[in-house]
Amino acid sequence: MMPLPSQSTQAPGEFLINGSLGIELTGYAEPRLERARQRFLDVLSRETGIPLWREAVVNKPNFTVHTEGPSLAVQRLGEDESYRLAISTSGVQLSAANPLGVLHGLQTFLLLVRVTPKGFGVPAITIEDKPRFPWRGLLIDSGHRFVRLPVIKRNLDAMEAVKLNVFHWRFSDDAGFHIESKRFPLLQEKASGGFYYTQEEVKEIIAYARDRGIRVVPEFDMPCHTASWFHAYPELGSGHIPGESSAMDPTRESTYEFLNGFIEEMADLFPDAYFHTGGDECDFHEWESNPRIQEYMRVHVIKDGAALQAEFTAKIQTIVAQNKKIMMGWDEVLLPGTPKEVVIQSWRGPKSLADAARNGNRGILSSGYYIDLNWSAAEHYAVDPLGDPSAASLTSEEKARVLGGEATMWTDIVSDENLDNRVWPRTAAIAERLWSAADVRDVDSMYRRLGVVSQKLGYYGVRHRLITEEMLERMSGDPNPVALRVLADVVQPPKGYERQQLRNFGDFTPMNRLDDAVPPESETARVFDDIARRIAAGKATPEDWQQAQTWLTLWRDNDARLQPLLARSFLTQDLVSVSRNLSEVATIGLQALDDLKHDRLVSADVRSQNIDFLNAAAKPQAVVLLMIAPSVETLVKATRSN
Amino acid sequence: MMPLPSQSTQAPGEFLINGSLGIELTGYAEPRLERARQRFLDVLSRETGIPLWREAVVNKPNFTVHTEGPSLAVQRLGEDESYRLAISTSGVQLSAANPLGVLHGLQTFLLLVRVTPKGFGVPAITIEDKPRFPWRGLLIDSGHRFVRLPVIKRNLDAMEAVKLNVFHWRFSDDAGFHIESKRFPLLQEKASGGFYYTQEEVKEIIAYARDRGIRVVPEFDMPCHTASWFHAYPELGSGHIPGESSAMDPTRESTYEFLNGFIEEMADLFPDAYFHTGGDECDFHEWESNPRIQEYMRVHVIKDGAALQAEFTAKIQTIVAQNKKIMMGWDEVLLPGTPKEVVIQSWRGPKSLADAARNGNRGILSSGYYIDLNWSAAEHYAVDPLGDPSAASLTSEEKARVLGGEATMWTDIVSDENLDNRVWPRTAAIAERLWSAADVRDVDSMYRRLGVVSQKLGYYGVRHRLITEEMLERMSGDPNPVALRVLADVVQPPKGYERQQLRNFGDFTPMNRLDDAVPPESETARVFDDIARRIAAGKATPEDWQQAQTWLTLWRDNDARLQPLLARSFLTQDLVSVSRNLSEVATIGLQALDDLKHDRLVSADVRSQNIDFLNAAAKPQAVVLLMIAPSVETLVKATRSN
Repeated sequence: MMPLPSQSTQAPGEFLINGSLGIELTGYAEPRLERARQRFLDVLSRETGIPLWREAVVNKPNFTVHTEGPSLAVQRLGEDESYRLAISTSGVQLSAANPLGVLHGLQTFLLLVRVTPKGFGVPAITIEDKPRFPWRGLLIDSGHRFVRLPVIKRNLDAMEAVKLNVFHWRFSDDAGFHIESKRFPLLQEKASGGFYYTQEEVKEIIAYARDRGIRVVPEFDMPCHTASWFHAYPELGSGHIPGESSAMDPTRESTYEFLNGFIEEMADLFPDAYFHTGGDECDFHEWESNPRIQEYMRVHVIKDGAALQAEFTAKIQTIVAQNKKIMMGWDEVLLPGTPKEVVIQSWRGPKSLADAARNGNRGILSSGYYIDLNWSAAEHYAVDPLGDPSAASLTSEEKARVLGGEATMWTDIVSDENLDNRVWPRTAAIAERLWSAADVRDVDSMYRRLGVVSQKLGYYGVRHRLITEEMLERMSGDPNPVALRVLADVVQPPKGYERQQLRNFGDFTPMNRLDDAVPPESETARVFDDIARRIAAGKATPEDWQQAQTWLTLWRDNDARLQPLLARSFLTQDLVSVSRNLSEVATIGLQALDDLKHDRLVSADVRSQNIDFLNAAAKPQAVVLLMIAPSVETLVKATRSN
Repeated sequence: MMPLPSQSTQAPGEFLINGSLGIELTGYAEPRLERARQRFLDVLSRETGIPLWREAVVNKPNFTVHTEGPSLAVQRLGEDESYRLAISTSGVQLSAANPLGVLHGLQTFLLLVRVTPKGFGVPAITIEDKPRFPWRGLLIDSGHRFVRLPVIKRNLDAMEAVKLNVFHWRFSDDAGFHIESKRFPLLQEKASGGFYYTQEEVKEIIAYARDRGIRVVPEFDMPCHTASWFHAYPELGSGHIPGESSAMDPTRESTYEFLNGFIEEMADLFPDAYFHTGGDECDFHEWESNPRIQEYMRVHVIKDGAALQAEFTAKIQTIVAQNKKIMMGWDEVLLPGTPKEVVIQSWRGPKSLADAARNGNRGILSSGYYIDLNWSAAEHYAVDPLGDPSAASLTSEEKARVLGGEATMWTDIVSDENLDNRVWPRTAAIAERLWSAADVRDVDSMYRRLGVVSQKLGYYGVRHRLITEEMLERMSGDPNPVALRVLADVVQPPKGYERQQLRNFGDFTPMNRLDDAVPPESETARVFDDIARRIAAGKATPEDWQQAQTWLTLWRDNDARLQPLLARSFLTQDLVSVSRNLSEVATIGLQALDDLKHDRLVSADVRSQNIDFLNAAAKPQAVVLLMIAPSVETLVKATRSN
């Protein structure tokens, strides 16, 4: 299960799932619950291959879903999401105060299903569950890149599976403006590149999300990252030269007149109580170098760009509040005068969140949850919204102001095709951090359960597990690219922003190379690293030794098979040295394994040469990292040297 | 390419596909062509990873699509489907008389795309193409089993890819009636099990098919296979006991009144000129044992059940004709008095088609194209609608009455989940038989190109290549079921109707076992068999020997890894002996390989024992066939014996 529930008690035996499963809805009724049942049965049918989608609605019920009453017409932050799931060998009872808890409970059941010698079953267990944090989000950035609706939908499906409840939908950036405005249609006509969500489509997504217990919070980033808006309305920009401005002009009344109308329209379109106006990363030089803006600042005694942004933020906050919405913004909107109502989204770290809470502002954490940066699941998992040392001294009232967090899928260098494998399965680890108790921290357990969730998400239509294979086939032109797969299995894209430095990414750059294809975290390399550490620590099992030997041999011999194929495709030509390195690293690894097995003394020179080679091989090549190099270094360093 | 075009001339060089591709539509314009372009770009984007779906509409054109004029408002049998596709190193020109040819030409281009050292490209080539037969169909049987709309849609996508142009949609059988009737709503209310296509959905599919150059021909099978109808309207049935009748009562006037109304409604819903009323496999006992029907037959001097069906058919033909449709039926509707207009669909063989043509009736072939029977692609490929010896003597006018053929996907023992892997890729070989010249018959070439098409169909969203892996993961509960995969790779479901005899299939039987999971034809076993034959014939290459050795070793050693896992799941428990057999067969194969390599004399006793074992191992076990057993027998038989 992931996220782990707050309380559970296991009993002996299990509930078997077969063609006689019957599921009934009792208590409060609404069409959303009927749809949830059908969706549940669709996934359960895929998990088991039993056509329950046809049968389980008419069968005699042995699975009762009881809903006490309605949830609010617009899902509200902090609304009751608890549920109780009691599974015995003979039946299942799910109950919740409202449909939100029912949705969560159904997902918990689906994650418990597994095959056994007797059939498909779930263990007998009683679960009482509710979330630790009320705000558990995923940001998808449709500003940098238009993300098509099927991608959005299947990610909402996956969010439901792991109990995330906020879809933060970002619509604009310098690169584009991707939502229809009926009041200012030039925005989509001139700034979208032809691709934008119609308001009908937005409503469809809001309804789709509501069906899954997910709120939709829109973001329109301002006053910076707004170059695209100026294709439509150049007068909004502050730059001297049209087309070279990225920041709005915060000194003109007309800017606020425009934004007043725009925010009014969008506040009406999105029912959620929160409205995100961005506010991040202003380059103040644009304002500070503009004579007209300089003059305004002089007259109004505004000392610098930051102060000018503060004035802008205050005015926008007023507009947002007039539209009965609560403003959200990134770290930068938190300034001494910021109203207490404003919710801060921290990309800088948990410290600024603790500071905000102390200041009286609520906030959510995104620093540490940037899933575009190719961190490991373990690294994300270690980040806690209340994890900063300074948070320890918060009062419980202040702590309650830390609402949760959001994984952020920035789309600078991701495409519709590989987005799923950047988001999943790692975001499930973040979802657990935000739902489960703070002391749920066992990384091995997390990875074990993450593997199960990852497989299950396939039943929801998420494509993360399919992408790599499809892209390797395309890269190689080979329907069964065995040797390329072996290489791909142990490389990763570089972490952080290094990838952008190693490769030129433009708006239309095809994302069809190896660093696009492989998941951000190599599972094989992770498992091999664990084995290498156990071997180095003298704690390895015979199976560990055998597995290390098998893998290293496979990797050593792979280059001979792969090398002749690489020249056939322009997408694999640059992998020549990566493939060779894999072979050489594995050769060193096999030698180290043998030295360790026989407790052999190794020449210090050879050892040091090998370590130098491994360090070099661990550096990015062809925009990928050979992840086994550091693990082999662990083995080499464990050998005895003279 | 598949199907191979009627004429093509290749030139040196290739047309490279990159972000600057621009595609323009000239000549006759209609929204269907715009949609075809966008669909083309979507697939091309998936093939290349280049986001052409965003760019290629606005770029400067280097790919011109010229349409001379409209096609008919309702696509008609025999309408011009020809196109000309001229690809040079600098540009592409596609032209056609109407949108149907354009659709085909776009698909040809997509199948030509491949990765090269310089980029994605298509070879410079000029193609003039048109089909051999005007009727190239796929039957999907929504009668035995309701098939959900996404499955229908992605199969229509695949049909377009291989230029099939008739979707034969069968709605009813004894098991169910799965379409909405507004005149007789009890049909869907009482006979559908709750699952039926609304008329809106049917219209959606008709429009979807039209967009892809595909006609939709409905079938309502009568007067037999109609038990489901009687749940709603028992008076239609001829049986003594309600619920035990499968045949309509052809003696009551009320039957024809009902069918008159029903056919009128459905003829109105389906715009195609053809209307299929089934007519197959009547069990005349039901009529002949009914005293009331006996009496009717005596009074009207009807000598037997066949003659009674002939009377029924004639009356139905009149009703169909009154609704301005052309009746189609299975073999059985062809009788001495059958009107010449009636089109015969032959499930009995090409001879009855030739007979029909001689008789003046047009017909299509389905015998030999039953893709539910797990034949190999080569077996289907060998079947020609004009392939019967008696067809040779047909005049050209008579030959023209053989309109083409249809692959038939009967759904008795297939599910929404594995339907794609039963239909594809083998149906592409049938599509080539129906499109390409009669002398296109090279099986090796077919398999080579079929492999490419199979991979490409993934870009259309067809799931045939994903299904096996997903089902193996589910069966084993293992996200990476390596050893089970090795076994699955060399087994097949039994051919013909043997599978139904080996396993009980009911309406709700889960299709989640190994025989459901594996494709009907094992590619590995096919390639291994080719190698074994070459080795036996003394024509093998060193690579052949090496590949045989590698595979046989893998198979021999697999049981040790797989056996401990099989007991963990109820879906793998019965594979114990199949896995053991694989190992033993491979051991015999390795020995034979070694004997052949060293030209060793083998004891006749051992040889004969081995052949006995291989024969036993080639028989179905756990409802699968171990496909390498006959190939190993080929090796054993090639050894020298004393």
